[in-house]
Amino acid sequence: MNITRHPNNPIITAGSIRPTEPSLRVFGIFNPGVFNDRNKIGLIVRVAEAPVQPENNKPTTLILQNNKPTITTVENVTDVSDPRLIRTQTGTLLTSMSHFRLFWSTDGVTFSEPDEPIRLFGQGAYETYGIEDARITKIGSTWYMTYTAVSQAGVAVALMSTTDWATFIRHGLILPPHNKDCVLFPEKINGLYYCLHRPTGSDIGGNFIWMSTSPDLLFWGNHQCIAQTRPGLWDSERIGAAFEPVKTKDGWLLFYHGANENHQYSVGTILLDTNNPYNVLNRSKTPVMQPETDYEKEGFFGHVVFPTGMASLNNRHLMYYGSADSVICVAEIEL
Amino acid sequence: MNITRHPNNPIITAGSIRPTEPSLRVFGIFNPGVFNDRNKIGLIVRVAEAPVQPENNKPTTLILQNNKPTITTVENVTDVSDPRLIRTQTGTLLTSMSHFRLFWSTDGVTFSEPDEPIRLFGQGAYETYGIEDARITKIGSTWYMTYTAVSQAGVAVALMSTTDWATFIRHGLILPPHNKDCVLFPEKINGLYYCLHRPTGSDIGGNFIWMSTSPDLLFWGNHQCIAQTRPGLWDSERIGAAFEPVKTKDGWLLFYHGANENHQYSVGTILLDTNNPYNVLNRSKTPVMQPETDYEKEGFFGHVVFPTGMASLNNRHLMYYGSADSVICVAEIEL
Repeated sequence: MNITRHPNNPIITAGSIRPTEPSLRVFGIFNPGVFNDRNKIGLIVRVAEAPVQPENNKPTTLILQNNKPTITTVENVTDVSDPRLIRTQTGTLLTSMSHFRLFWSTDGVTFSEPDEPIRLFGQGAYETYGIEDARITKIGSTWYMTYTAVSQAGVAVALMSTTDWATFIRHGLILPPHNKDCVLFPEKINGLYYCLHRPTGSDIGGNFIWMSTSPDLLFWGNHQCIAQTRPGLWDSERIGAAFEPVKTKDGWLLFYHGANENHQYSVGTILLDTNNPYNVLNRSKTPVMQPETDYEKEGFFGHVVFPTGMASLNNRHLMYYGSADSVICVAEIEL
Repeated sequence: MNITRHPNNPIITAGSIRPTEPSLRVFGIFNPGVFNDRNKIGLIVRVAEAPVQPENNKPTTLILQNNKPTITTVENVTDVSDPRLIRTQTGTLLTSMSHFRLFWSTDGVTFSEPDEPIRLFGQGAYETYGIEDARITKIGSTWYMTYTAVSQAGVAVALMSTTDWATFIRHGLILPPHNKDCVLFPEKINGLYYCLHRPTGSDIGGNFIWMSTSPDLLFWGNHQCIAQTRPGLWDSERIGAAFEPVKTKDGWLLFYHGANENHQYSVGTILLDTNNPYNVLNRSKTPVMQPETDYEKEGFFGHVVFPTGMASLNNRHLMYYGSADSVICVAEIEL
């Protein structure tokens, strides 16, 4: 499989993003949801913001209060060794809060926000710590966006839909915690919707890819594990679906991310039966893409290529990926 | 609330249970599912078995192979400090495998297996480490049994049903891992089935009680967290539904277990709105039952009262609970 990184990479950097307001700073940009709309490509970029931290003060973070991101002082801190987390005596918070921003491009490389920016923030009890990592699938004439809803109650999978990228319907949580990396298949199979997701392991089990079906995208069942981590290989610690599976003549081609014990994230593929995707036909022994360039190896959380969407332009397939938790990149794929 | 322990407690002990075959020993008995069938009370008791361990040999455990419990030598062991777990370089196994045994009683206190024992073992890919902790609810003329399915793939919630306690239909996983303590409501509310469950916390979030709905008991959605742990109280670490909520004139009365940071398990109550159970009306500040007696304080895993079912006999409400992971007890409740 030929994967060619674009010479303009990274195409969006955290440094180019303005915070929502002056009291905040952009902590990182991450893993965009991707979609085609006629001749344009849209990205739903996850922007993580943190309060500008006054020196010598108690740590602060952002938490939604009455649906408004609010700078909040964190009490009883016990551990801040992971720059993403603040552990306290009563629970764990995030150092930053993420929201979504819509970017458009006509060439797949140069992206900008529309004149009237579309920005989506967390809402309600299950998104008080923000919303993360959109994955977008068009089914019929509607775009469905799965994403990670984060709150004191846990980390779960939520669903939003739109037909115009201006108004959005929020469908609530479709999978209970602790779960993320949910992608929908682009069509019904034998009368049911399909999704892939990544329940978080705990003692027994691990961070594996599961598949489920639904009659209506809201109620999900028939949960089965289709891929586990592989000790000794590049995907030994964590795996998760990258974006919607691509229908090919040989079956559904799924790109997935895999991390090893050194937290190096690479990309592999799994081939699923066209008519019964629970049936795994093949899985790549070696990664099809690994962190190679400086912008993939350095940064806040280095050695990461984390694809989260693909779109098409002039019959070329463009895969978008977050890298080092601080930039967004694009590569062309010959499938 | 008056809760009166029966003087014959414990009513079933691990020592009274014969292993499935001589090469095995009974490791513990646990947390029974409970149901009424005409004038009898049935218990589905979880029996955990482990291989009789030859001295100086590598640790062994039971794993389902071709649906048959098979003594398996465990390689590359890294940690056996928790007597329930064997940690290895490639994952965590259980020291024992659980299956279910049906016991009947006409007085609610003296239980025995039928002449032709009904024993249920794990089946298929998601129960290779066994099946645990049944909760039973009768809906219409069918008994539904939720239980914990344990395998290398994770710890998830499965569903079985029966109309005669002789033949069983296995419906597969109804909630993905890591989840347990699932109980069904005994009737539909506004056209939907309801359940409570306990996703396992991981970094963000905790071991809280969630509620979901379903059109058909197989596909579940509308996941909401109805109760969290309470720092500083008796239920500060983990909470989970005990058994099906009891319909009262004031609402659905839910018994739940709560553990504190010392792993002491006690029992509390939550009152849920009759027509919209997502609406929590009340929650007990103090436990309604705590470990008190010797048989609740000692044993393999002491300081535990863990109710998992209730049944009625001559207008008396009998609550069954596992204690110390080694005995089953009964107490009468005046609701």
